[in-house]
Amino acid sequence: MLQQDPNAEPQITRQCFRRRYPETDFYEEKNRDKVRNHTYKSAIEYHADNIRNKVVLDLGCGTGILSILCAKAGARKVYAVDAGTDIASQVANIVDANGLSHVIIVVRGRFEDLEINEDVDVIVSEWMGQMLLGEDMLLRVITARDRWLKPGGVILPSSGTLFMAPFTNFERYCEKVEFWLDVAEIDMSPMISFTEQNAFASPNVDRINDENLLADPQVVKHVNCYSITIPELMSIGESFSMKTLKQGRVNGFAFWFNAEFTGLRQEEEQLSALDRMDSALVLCTGPSVPPTHWEQTLIYFPTTVQLERGRPFTGSVTLTQPTKHKWLMEIKLIYRSNNGDLVCKKQTDLFSPF
Amino acid sequence: MLQQDPNAEPQITRQCFRRRYPETDFYEEKNRDKVRNHTYKSAIEYHADNIRNKVVLDLGCGTGILSILCAKAGARKVYAVDAGTDIASQVANIVDANGLSHVIIVVRGRFEDLEINEDVDVIVSEWMGQMLLGEDMLLRVITARDRWLKPGGVILPSSGTLFMAPFTNFERYCEKVEFWLDVAEIDMSPMISFTEQNAFASPNVDRINDENLLADPQVVKHVNCYSITIPELMSIGESFSMKTLKQGRVNGFAFWFNAEFTGLRQEEEQLSALDRMDSALVLCTGPSVPPTHWEQTLIYFPTTVQLERGRPFTGSVTLTQPTKHKWLMEIKLIYRSNNGDLVCKKQTDLFSPF
Repeated sequence: MLQQDPNAEPQITRQCFRRRYPETDFYEEKNRDKVRNHTYKSAIEYHADNIRNKVVLDLGCGTGILSILCAKAGARKVYAVDAGTDIASQVANIVDANGLSHVIIVVRGRFEDLEINEDVDVIVSEWMGQMLLGEDMLLRVITARDRWLKPGGVILPSSGTLFMAPFTNFERYCEKVEFWLDVAEIDMSPMISFTEQNAFASPNVDRINDENLLADPQVVKHVNCYSITIPELMSIGESFSMKTLKQGRVNGFAFWFNAEFTGLRQEEEQLSALDRMDSALVLCTGPSVPPTHWEQTLIYFPTTVQLERGRPFTGSVTLTQPTKHKWLMEIKLIYRSNNGDLVCKKQTDLFSPF
Repeated sequence: MLQQDPNAEPQITRQCFRRRYPETDFYEEKNRDKVRNHTYKSAIEYHADNIRNKVVLDLGCGTGILSILCAKAGARKVYAVDAGTDIASQVANIVDANGLSHVIIVVRGRFEDLEINEDVDVIVSEWMGQMLLGEDMLLRVITARDRWLKPGGVILPSSGTLFMAPFTNFERYCEKVEFWLDVAEIDMSPMISFTEQNAFASPNVDRINDENLLADPQVVKHVNCYSITIPELMSIGESFSMKTLKQGRVNGFAFWFNAEFTGLRQEEEQLSALDRMDSALVLCTGPSVPPTHWEQTLIYFPTTVQLERGRPFTGSVTLTQPTKHKWLMEIKLIYRSNNGDLVCKKQTDLFSPF
């Protein structure tokens, strides 16, 4: 059933992460995330009218939690699909333990090989990765939508919004670099610049809070799951112009996302619904709300930038998914100082272990 | 300078760990380990008479801490060798910052390509990995000894001892499995056996304490750095018979090591010196002493075993380094219950990220 990739490298690279982090740790982290569990549960219960007696597709079902919530909400049939080689048989046991094997059909295999012989009314999925798009699961949701979703069908979550804001995190920065000043009475200070170049070169998944933000967040991308296309996701570019709320040294940009469960079809309706929406129907992963396992994604600048209060901080961010290694995401950041001079261009990539 | 391995897989696998854990994190962890730093410092100062005006080889020098300590102890010349592509140029800066570039020669490259045109009086190295032998660095120390160490030369550390003892760690075990009983009001109990099979399948690097041990530790292997040979390291087998100190459920075996800085040549002298030795000259990584970054290596049994107090617990352990992937170590454990019946055979491997 599995196809051989002519260039085996990405498969191997993924595999070795699975080795270091047992598959159970991955599912454990997600299942321990009460904010995630609670929001999906509320959203599925809220949309029970659209789920009752309907056919649901749960893409990347993991331990099957979303499938079971949909079954409990009255779904007639749920396809629970996952490529995890070991998890699928566990899902069957979990479904059984909850007395739902007459509703939930567990399908084990790669999405690319998936065949469903009927259209579905609802697609549920937990596709959000680091910086919202960091895993390539959304591409599968889009493909599934175009192949199997009935007209008027529901997608949960219905949209996602990626935010960014400049942050200062000097304490963390010092913690990483300052101890090099004295190791066993030896001057290790040359390690400071080495640490600056290396430890903060790739995006850090870490937790900050509201006080770390130096400007109001800006939307990088709003992804409507009903209308977004794959080509649109391949390269996302957005310029920004932020007024700094306070003076401070910027360490870099923080990224996080919301996933919204509007459940509605039309984009205009969706956006207006967002304003009226129960906050329990928005899964927030930002710095000002209770933590989730996504935390925030921090992209550090090569050097800190001093910002004056109230002055604009401008630049652009581009997120590109390479066609070959879709699980990588290339990030290009250009930002300018207060007087408009180019301060820096930073190019890195976001690596998803799964 | 780098040779291409015909089978590239292990190189790729190693590389991807470097990616997830920036190289600096690896050095940071070691440099933050005060027990490690302090013991090496004491040992090098203790053996200053053997180092003064002598030629030293520091294998896998990392940030150069051991080279600098030897230079400070009066070495005439120190070869600081490391294959880390980025670290070597930092070491040169660190050496410079400490005013020792007239003593320390930084050699960047793989050990296999190393050429030194003189014999050395002292070899220092921090070669110890998980379960003492978990990285393949000791093989390089042995090769260097046979190629370059002068008769009567000193190796630091001079020997290493691997210990094992059965442990109980029920709390940690429960923490990993019990939360599955209720996730978002869904019965996830089938995940318990999945977790048992997966989370504890590979060796866990974790910290336990004396209370977790159910029997006195037993020596698995004493490695004398002066006399050990590479074939001897390729497969180490040891049977054990332990009297349990208290009744309890064994979760598995804990392994840890000591590294001893006797500095003497003869094995008999070394062993008797160990009894007389200043404890500051033994680097201990066991559960009853201050923690090191090595912690302990825990190999969990597939199921717990109930032990009665004072009854023997017997079996054997075999550690094999596969010729092809020397950075892997295969571990085979066979253990028998109180009445001599075979309880279990467990085979796993120890995976070193570096």
